[in-house]
Amino acid sequence: MSIDLRSDTVTKPSEAMRQSMYNAEVGDDVYGEDPTVHRLEETAAEILGKEASLFVTSGTMGNQIAVLVQARSGEEILLEEQSHIFLYEAATHSAFAGVQTRTIKGVRGAMNPEDVRQAIRPVDIHQPRTSMICVENTHNKAGGAVVPAENMRAIYEIAREHSVAVHLDGARLFNTVVASGGKASDFTQYVDTVQVCFSKGLGAPIGSILAGDRETIERARIWRKRMGGGTRQVGVIAAPALLALTQNVERLAEDHANAKHLAEGLAQIKGMEINPDNVDTNIVIVDVRGLGISDLQLIEALKQAGILCGGFGPGLVRFVTHLDVTRADIDTALATLHKVVRGAQ
Amino acid sequence: MSIDLRSDTVTKPSEAMRQSMYNAEVGDDVYGEDPTVHRLEETAAEILGKEASLFVTSGTMGNQIAVLVQARSGEEILLEEQSHIFLYEAATHSAFAGVQTRTIKGVRGAMNPEDVRQAIRPVDIHQPRTSMICVENTHNKAGGAVVPAENMRAIYEIAREHSVAVHLDGARLFNTVVASGGKASDFTQYVDTVQVCFSKGLGAPIGSILAGDRETIERARIWRKRMGGGTRQVGVIAAPALLALTQNVERLAEDHANAKHLAEGLAQIKGMEINPDNVDTNIVIVDVRGLGISDLQLIEALKQAGILCGGFGPGLVRFVTHLDVTRADIDTALATLHKVVRGAQ
Amino acid sequence: MSIDLRSDTVTKPSEAMRQSMYNAEVGDDVYGEDPTVHRLEETAAEILGKEASLFVTSGTMGNQIAVLVQARSGEEILLEEQSHIFLYEAATHSAFAGVQTRTIKGVRGAMNPEDVRQAIRPVDIHQPRTSMICVENTHNKAGGAVVPAENMRAIYEIAREHSVAVHLDGARLFNTVVASGGKASDFTQYVDTVQVCFSKGLGAPIGSILAGDRETIERARIWRKRMGGGTRQVGVIAAPALLALTQNVERLAEDHANAKHLAEGLAQIKGMEINPDNVDTNIVIVDVRGLGISDLQLIEALKQAGILCGGFGPGLVRFVTHLDVTRADIDTALATLHKVVRGAQ
Amino acid sequence: MSIDLRSDTVTKPSEAMRQSMYNAEVGDDVYGEDPTVHRLEETAAEILGKEASLFVTSGTMGNQIAVLVQARSGEEILLEEQSHIFLYEAATHSAFAGVQTRTIKGVRGAMNPEDVRQAIRPVDIHQPRTSMICVENTHNKAGGAVVPAENMRAIYEIAREHSVAVHLDGARLFNTVVASGGKASDFTQYVDTVQVCFSKGLGAPIGSILAGDRETIERARIWRKRMGGGTRQVGVIAAPALLALTQNVERLAEDHANAKHLAEGLAQIKGMEINPDNVDTNIVIVDVRGLGISDLQLIEALKQAGILCGGFGPGLVRFVTHLDVTRADIDTALATLHKVVRGAQ
Repeated sequence: MSIDLRSDTVTKPSEAMRQSMYNAEVGDDVYGEDPTVHRLEETAAEILGKEASLFVTSGTMGNQIAVLVQARSGEEILLEEQSHIFLYEAATHSAFAGVQTRTIKGVRGAMNPEDVRQAIRPVDIHQPRTSMICVENTHNKAGGAVVPAENMRAIYEIAREHSVAVHLDGARLFNTVVASGGKASDFTQYVDTVQVCFSKGLGAPIGSILAGDRETIERARIWRKRMGGGTRQVGVIAAPALLALTQNVERLAEDHANAKHLAEGLAQIKGMEINPDNVDTNIVIVDVRGLGISDLQLIEALKQAGILCGGFGPGLVRFVTHLDVTRADIDTALATLHKVVRGAQ
Repeated sequence: MSIDLRSDTVTKPSEAMRQSMYNAEVGDDVYGEDPTVHRLEETAAEILGKEASLFVTSGTMGNQIAVLVQARSGEEILLEEQSHIFLYEAATHSAFAGVQTRTIKGVRGAMNPEDVRQAIRPVDIHQPRTSMICVENTHNKAGGAVVPAENMRAIYEIAREHSVAVHLDGARLFNTVVASGGKASDFTQYVDTVQVCFSKGLGAPIGSILAGDRETIERARIWRKRMGGGTRQVGVIAAPALLALTQNVERLAEDHANAKHLAEGLAQIKGMEINPDNVDTNIVIVDVRGLGISDLQLIEALKQAGILCGGFGPGLVRFVTHLDVTRADIDTALATLHKVVRGAQ
Repeated sequence: MSIDLRSDTVTKPSEAMRQSMYNAEVGDDVYGEDPTVHRLEETAAEILGKEASLFVTSGTMGNQIAVLVQARSGEEILLEEQSHIFLYEAATHSAFAGVQTRTIKGVRGAMNPEDVRQAIRPVDIHQPRTSMICVENTHNKAGGAVVPAENMRAIYEIAREHSVAVHLDGARLFNTVVASGGKASDFTQYVDTVQVCFSKGLGAPIGSILAGDRETIERARIWRKRMGGGTRQVGVIAAPALLALTQNVERLAEDHANAKHLAEGLAQIKGMEINPDNVDTNIVIVDVRGLGISDLQLIEALKQAGILCGGFGPGLVRFVTHLDVTRADIDTALATLHKVVRGAQ
Repeated sequence: MSIDLRSDTVTKPSEAMRQSMYNAEVGDDVYGEDPTVHRLEETAAEILGKEASLFVTSGTMGNQIAVLVQARSGEEILLEEQSHIFLYEAATHSAFAGVQTRTIKGVRGAMNPEDVRQAIRPVDIHQPRTSMICVENTHNKAGGAVVPAENMRAIYEIAREHSVAVHLDGARLFNTVVASGGKASDFTQYVDTVQVCFSKGLGAPIGSILAGDRETIERARIWRKRMGGGTRQVGVIAAPALLALTQNVERLAEDHANAKHLAEGLAQIKGMEINPDNVDTNIVIVDVRGLGISDLQLIEALKQAGILCGGFGPGLVRFVTHLDVTRADIDTALATLHKVVRGAQ
């Protein structure tokens, strides 16, 4: 049995989650009659400090609906140039919402507020209106970096001055929350809408939530229908999502500690570049160009030895900790790494 | 506790289905590693007589992906003027795929092949190319009518002559199959893609399948990602869907018998117009304009008396039988109807 | 030299129009500095009884911008099932604006207001919002039929009740105006936006106008930019358009008389079906299925004999009168037709 | 009367162009019968070294049609981050074609081929396919910079390796051609499609051309229809465009000399930053942040003194030479500038 460090999406539903599905009280959600999804949506809205929320099938669905309700065809959205929405959502916002992307290079996932200000378009018939700014927190490609609340506040103020909406891709927002020692609303107060995944570190099999003010969420419901996300006895998946949200947040600290431990171990390996101080949460990205073997060769060799991880751009390898990975697993992984690297050199 | 005849979507997952979720073998389907969804997709493809299939969250998602992979922006699709895709999918095909709808009036859900032929556009710079024809079977608004295989064959031949794709909205295809005494491929052989719902008469909580040739389904996978339908441990909902597909088909005959029984009872009530011979499957639509009370008043009065049904256009009321409704329930419903109607007059 | 009755679009610019181009006062319209286009837009707005207007390159551009500013992605527009926008604008409204078309069968181009009322969608998450109704007047496919102002009034009242916009495809509106003996605003008072072509019966080489309230036209300007209709020294084509608008309207009566004369002559030919009473303006559609030769054969034989006309659907041939066609030309055309038909039989 | 250095779009049609409009041989281009536009399209195709070309109303229309025929909804196009298509075409490619933009920072308008290679997406379900690269030459925001043919060659080779199309926004391609002393095909051989404007330095009132292979141009014709660019007696504007193309190319050298002369003069003014060596063609961008007055104040003061120029981003002012500007005008402009700057300090 491998130790799977490819992503926190690979977590299997726990016994409690399986029980919750088995016992889920359900109804037809298209008729608004599923009590479990109601409970989930109310709980999530409260935790995220928003008026209302909507259960969606995936993070991509949540992010894309946020665009559809806050930007119109022929407008422009601003996002960090390594953000998930820009890189990994298959240009859906352009295909379905008709919006242009304009990217800003950030530092550890955080965009400079002045760069954001400069990128907002003036009123001019040749130029698209800037209608939305997307922030990602934690920032995946920046190695699970926490974007400071202060940075989000500064961007939000600029956005409000220009009547531009702000959306938070908070696929891993609770990693930010736990790492910063605060609460979700410390961050979500600076955005109009936020999407959070239950199927990553929180361990649920399926599902995400989109939260915002009541009117926005009402319109989001219509676009969820168009995305094919209107479902029936959805309580069977809302139940484990509710467990994930209410019981699996604090334990993310463990994943963070494991990631730090892993990073410190990797930093000892000659040819692997990583600064453990930059590991804020559960993602560890290491530059392996100094190893003498390629990233793909390393990943394959580790796979043969029972350790799964993933490529993350030229010369980069990503490890993600999660609730199916223990401290002992990390130690095994490190030992294996040492062996593999030695063998390769 | 009410007898719920509003739709076959309201069915609650059975004990066996709940067990199947509890026990589901799962993996991360974005990595292609969920064994249960693989089993479901293989089984569905085989039953539907197609090379491949793709699990999707809803019937709307399946139908809309079928459009996205078979029609391009600025083209036209032909569909029956009372079809679900035209009436009840919120114009998603125009919003996301950029296609124009052209409707044809059918008889009991079946379009006249000659009308289809006439509606296919000639090559002309002013006109959109006709790229797709959608058939619905059973046809919901036509009262669950079975569209004959022979009609589908004739349309398919015309479509092939003109290199036009054919999609089957088979949300309730298995009702057609059971009512006609044949097998699914008797119908699906005349289409390029087909969508079938597990969450209607088959009783699963969530999910539909889209089937077609391998290349089309590969491209469908990309558009499912854009629709937000790419999920993780999806086995937890694929498991009950697999049960639905393999164990709940034959029993639809019971729903059909119950619907016929209901229709025959309704036909006895003065002021209710219905021809039981037209009740092919599990949907019963009755014209209540002769009753002396409005459709909405009737629905409300029945609700008070514990019978749920739904409006279906001016003067029309729809009853749908399904696996949570017994023959005794139908008799109770009929008795209640007699009482309510007498009381109202 | 042929007598060209294919369309009123074939008119060549007159000597006066050529002079107007030669002398046109121009500026850079992207900077808002072309005085001729300003004059044209002010004159057109006044004649059409609207606050503002915008010069566009073609009728299709005008109609499509009207959709883009009055309907949003995922909404529905209602139009007559033989209307130009539905049949001959290459599904642009679906491709660019993301709207679904819903068609209504009219009588001589006029939709029954009650049919329009029934087709407006209720508020329902499954259904697209109805955002716009398009009227065509004169109605091309109905043989240049005048849609009565009273019919437009009734539709407009229903539209206002439901907060639905009304657009008039008035490509040949001035034919309606002249035929009805009134003024443009008798009709345009019942719509929010109207598009009129200068390049059809009015004889200008290029161009159309879109008129409406000031705010709508401001937004139209942005979409004209997107359509590629923002141009520079546009005065060179606005000048002949201005001539067309101010000097060529009354003379349309002559085209109508010629069309009637032609229709009366055609009605005498055995095997040609036409009721001259239905020829309201400058379009004559005749059913030639009784002739013994096909529509295409007839068109070809006439072409050989120096008379150009066009097919207009199976068995139908269309003749259009215009300012390059005299009464004597009509007599020649009729004489030729008699000869050709006799020869063919 | 002002000296207008705002843009080369402001040129008024010459006497010869007005004569050409007056005399233009025309026909109905929707029927393919306008001989003048045929002549223009054949001539342009030959000069640009492509199989076919299509007359369009504007540069934006030409560029956007190039996107519509070479990229599909949900795909990505690569362009320089200061390019006209990205900055000034109102996000039309996202609104109408559904494509995402990915920008690359260039040096004097030229993208580094290695950056282009890195930006092409791998095959991955999360990522949009890269379908098109846009090059701009001369590059407007880079101060009319000539992008070397060698740079275009390198990019084209990478594009072909990856089956990606290349489009050239050659709004001012003939400035490049004249400045480099070669011929158009030295550059257009490295692209699949090219758009050239007649209404900029070449002096025609309206119009651009899109050239490419025959099949692509056939499809472009369909999208031109959708953009509203299908017109009737278009010969009246094709005639001056043909004059522009055949008679006004060589004289661009004069504009370049005037621009260089202007730049050298500006370089003498304290507080104005400009390197005359970087003025390749007819555009002069000067940094005025050292002046002590703002860019907007300078522009206004010059306007009062009879010299028109334009802002071009914070602290930047743009002057463009063209056929309505003489060497004497440049000297007047420089003298006025000296006076205005002295007065302001």
